[in-house]
Amino acid sequence: MAEPTEQTPTEQPAGEQPAAPTSKKGAKKAEAKAKKEALKAARAAELAAAAAKVTLEDDPAQDNYGNKKTVSGLFSKDAEDIEIRNLNDGHIGKTVVVRAWIQNSRVQSAKMGFVELRKGGNWNIQGVVMASDEAPVVSRRMVKWITGINLESFIAVEATVKQPLEPVKSCRVSGLELHITKCYVLAPAPAMLGMTMAAASQPIVNFSDEKAATEEPDKAPEVATESNAPSASMLTHLDNIAMHKRAPIQQAIMDIRIQVKRLFRSYLEERGFKEFEPPALIGAASEGGGNVFRLGYFGEEAFLAQSPQFYKQFEIAGGRERVFSISPVFRAENSNTPRHMTEFTGLDLEMEIKDSYQEVLLILEGVLLSIFRGLQEKCAEEIETVRSVYYSEPLLLPEPGKEVRLTFAEAQKLLREEGPAEFANVSDDEDMSTAQEKALGEVVRKKFKTDFYVIDKFPETARPFYAKIDDESKKEGVKVTNAYDFFIRGQEVLSGGQRIHDPVELEERIKAKGVDPKSDGIKEYLAVFQQVGVPPHGGGGFGLDRVVAWFLALPSVHLAAYYPRTPKRLAP
Amino acid sequence: MAEPTEQTPTEQPAGEQPAAPTSKKGAKKAEAKAKKEALKAARAAELAAAAAKVTLEDDPAQDNYGNKKTVSGLFSKDAEDIEIRNLNDGHIGKTVVVRAWIQNSRVQSAKMGFVELRKGGNWNIQGVVMASDEAPVVSRRMVKWITGINLESFIAVEATVKQPLEPVKSCRVSGLELHITKCYVLAPAPAMLGMTMAAASQPIVNFSDEKAATEEPDKAPEVATESNAPSASMLTHLDNIAMHKRAPIQQAIMDIRIQVKRLFRSYLEERGFKEFEPPALIGAASEGGGNVFRLGYFGEEAFLAQSPQFYKQFEIAGGRERVFSISPVFRAENSNTPRHMTEFTGLDLEMEIKDSYQEVLLILEGVLLSIFRGLQEKCAEEIETVRSVYYSEPLLLPEPGKEVRLTFAEAQKLLREEGPAEFANVSDDEDMSTAQEKALGEVVRKKFKTDFYVIDKFPETARPFYAKIDDESKKEGVKVTNAYDFFIRGQEVLSGGQRIHDPVELEERIKAKGVDPKSDGIKEYLAVFQQVGVPPHGGGGFGLDRVVAWFLALPSVHLAAYYPRTPKRLAP
Repeated sequence: MAEPTEQTPTEQPAGEQPAAPTSKKGAKKAEAKAKKEALKAARAAELAAAAAKVTLEDDPAQDNYGNKKTVSGLFSKDAEDIEIRNLNDGHIGKTVVVRAWIQNSRVQSAKMGFVELRKGGNWNIQGVVMASDEAPVVSRRMVKWITGINLESFIAVEATVKQPLEPVKSCRVSGLELHITKCYVLAPAPAMLGMTMAAASQPIVNFSDEKAATEEPDKAPEVATESNAPSASMLTHLDNIAMHKRAPIQQAIMDIRIQVKRLFRSYLEERGFKEFEPPALIGAASEGGGNVFRLGYFGEEAFLAQSPQFYKQFEIAGGRERVFSISPVFRAENSNTPRHMTEFTGLDLEMEIKDSYQEVLLILEGVLLSIFRGLQEKCAEEIETVRSVYYSEPLLLPEPGKEVRLTFAEAQKLLREEGPAEFANVSDDEDMSTAQEKALGEVVRKKFKTDFYVIDKFPETARPFYAKIDDESKKEGVKVTNAYDFFIRGQEVLSGGQRIHDPVELEERIKAKGVDPKSDGIKEYLAVFQQVGVPPHGGGGFGLDRVVAWFLALPSVHLAAYYPRTPKRLAP
Repeated sequence: MAEPTEQTPTEQPAGEQPAAPTSKKGAKKAEAKAKKEALKAARAAELAAAAAKVTLEDDPAQDNYGNKKTVSGLFSKDAEDIEIRNLNDGHIGKTVVVRAWIQNSRVQSAKMGFVELRKGGNWNIQGVVMASDEAPVVSRRMVKWITGINLESFIAVEATVKQPLEPVKSCRVSGLELHITKCYVLAPAPAMLGMTMAAASQPIVNFSDEKAATEEPDKAPEVATESNAPSASMLTHLDNIAMHKRAPIQQAIMDIRIQVKRLFRSYLEERGFKEFEPPALIGAASEGGGNVFRLGYFGEEAFLAQSPQFYKQFEIAGGRERVFSISPVFRAENSNTPRHMTEFTGLDLEMEIKDSYQEVLLILEGVLLSIFRGLQEKCAEEIETVRSVYYSEPLLLPEPGKEVRLTFAEAQKLLREEGPAEFANVSDDEDMSTAQEKALGEVVRKKFKTDFYVIDKFPETARPFYAKIDDESKKEGVKVTNAYDFFIRGQEVLSGGQRIHDPVELEERIKAKGVDPKSDGIKEYLAVFQQVGVPPHGGGGFGLDRVVAWFLALPSVHLAAYYPRTPKRLAP
């Protein structure tokens, strides 16, 4: 195998830089362009002349820059290796080593240039490179080389930390700048990116999974301008997955997603819940059978879990008092909308009930409110970053003690009386449509000043066979369940309720729902209740992706996923 | 739908109790059996007589016991509702409500009986029920009824906490006992369990996925004896999943499993790692193509991820500095051994490398040692519970600063010189066999007094295409990689190393391994390195199930899984 040779500074390709940022238009644009072309020609000529008369050995700074596969041993031993986010005034005057992505660069003169370095989401800082004959030597060629590095290349620099003359407004670390004395490119980006950082940071309008006729993302990369970058489609984002992920908005969304998991876990662990992992591979399409992925399994058939429902209940049967899981779930639903994915992360819990199904409701309400309040407190900066791209009103939460819990019948009454005319006749024994849910969200917001509320006592027709029927309601007209949905902004984010624990009652409900109690999966499920006795219990679950997306009011749940899976998309 | 009627005390079935514990054999056994039969007959006669002459209304304690679907409102309002594990001397003299499984019961006389209550793994306490005419009234029928409840039923009792005359040796809460005044069965178990708790607590010897001709677990449940319960096969355990899980050993293993995840996560989060979720559904069988599950996907084909490898690297390309994941991974390998499963939980990490691949090695070594030391510290009781069933020597760990790190060549030399004769000629450029690994584990334990060690610099023939080759070794005879395996007790638990980040080098290695760089999955993988530049990075991963199993020296990895998946088993 041939060893790839390291590029020396003289081998650095001239590299077509994306157009320099400009905020002027029309005539000024043309002028600027002409100026730039002239500058470029002059630079090229200068470079050619330089290359003709000097060799590498003529550059006194030759060891201080270039493309490298490793920078081991190249930096001063006493220079602290530090992340941009950790730099502070205490570093002023010190020599540090910083590794980062080049986000922008600008030539000031033949002797001076600026580079903007980014790392860790949206932490950026200005780098200054200035020719100097005194040690540490920085040559003019080095200045030219550094400012010519392709954007989004990964570099490592040695620099002295200084205070800028005035704060650098374009950078988050505005009170410091790095005076670069060594600069190596560890991972060069190509001259032309498939999607620039500016484009990646614009709001996405087109979430279609179909390539538009006019759009050929592989061939026609957008060119960024500082103030007016074009919006790329979601397809272009996914085809340029690394750039998609590097954009501060995506970094912020993912940091928020991590925090949701953390808040979920800590709230539950503090209350005695134990984590477990339900299987993805199951032997029967046990929960209905529709929308389930099937696969060959050593001559038999296997299925992908649509929810951890049965397994959560098995844990309760198996003597765990309270459990939760964070696991992928799968839906073979051919829905090509920004609300759907074929794989998503389910956050689920199940618990013994002592006296009332309300114990479960209170835990679920508590965990969701703890997540939303926790995000507002711990992720204020990340939420701000997301809002700067996708504007939304902050989520209105109820004051403690003023949580809104309506029964299904109360909610329908509210909708009939205070909702739009089209819903004047909604009935108490049919499930709500998405449009009804949306309308109710607006009525509730107006009336109770909250975007978050619970609807309890869903009619049995709207619930699966394992939902426990409210014994009291049996005497009345509409049979309702001890089951509820949680909403934010009129969108359902969580379903939960009490489950049937009595095997006789369970078998009756299975039959009443038209399911054969002897069918695969159901048989084994029922057997657990018959074999040992299972205490009263209930639980609920929600999709992590949706909670993140609806909390931030993102235009698509796909933005909240690491690698969104849709009927048309499985890569990357 | 007919409402299942609640059983009143008189409807309680007599219930065949499993044989009372006995530790004597032969003649004594027969004698005991005869005695028992006589006792049973006497009891039945007594019961019939009682039923004939009394009605429910005659029992002054009629409201204090029975089968119930809910116990809401049945207990004194001032009785604290408490878990067995939280009971302490402060509760002596107080009235409490306890919910638990009946683990054992014993009739002392017509006026007195004992029940052993269990909850939360292996927390158990003795319950006493004594007839009393004074309030709270306990009738003789109530004593009989309570001691006749089928084992493993879930009950709720109201009781006064008292100090026993002497510590109850058979119970973990030995210094307290519960004097029961109310007792309701919330979830009755059947008289005959498919597997008793005593059997479930015995070591499993038979891990075969095939039902033995002599064993018909569905028809011939084992009968438990205190000291000599028969061992049930793994199949019987899985067919009785709730009993399998209720056994203290399984509860302990799962608590240890939870702690491994927690230690993994906290060690990494403290060092700046961010969690992410790789997809399970992927568009191409990217890592080789063998042993991969395929499924239909809206007219196309999809695959189940064999590892999060590519996705971890995409996260690094996408600007995350350090990431980890906890996710299911799938292997369509037809291996029916106690070492294999078709689905397991992968714990993986990936990180930017600053100067050396050793940075990754130190993080991986650190996280594993933190897990093992953390378990020994935080799970001492659970480990003890497991060892009481599956005995093992404690895992020998190296003292800090004395970690054992051998190169592959050094390890082979050690094996040639100090291992068994059969390995006197092992070579430096071929991967180790499982037998070699085992033998090496013994040599290392003897020489270095540790069960935990690292083997570094594996030959390139033993590593996948993305493993970074050690540049120095290219000049010598055997090309080695910056890649390593971690071992405990001679069994590999973790693989890791530096990855190639240069797209030219990566494409060369892909070709050298006989893979087409333009094939599905590989093409998109390579594209990320070409599109944007990826910094130097490395990582590693291990199977959660195996780490738990090997740490505890369990006879099968299936014991460490919640719902083990094998080529022959997908249920429950």
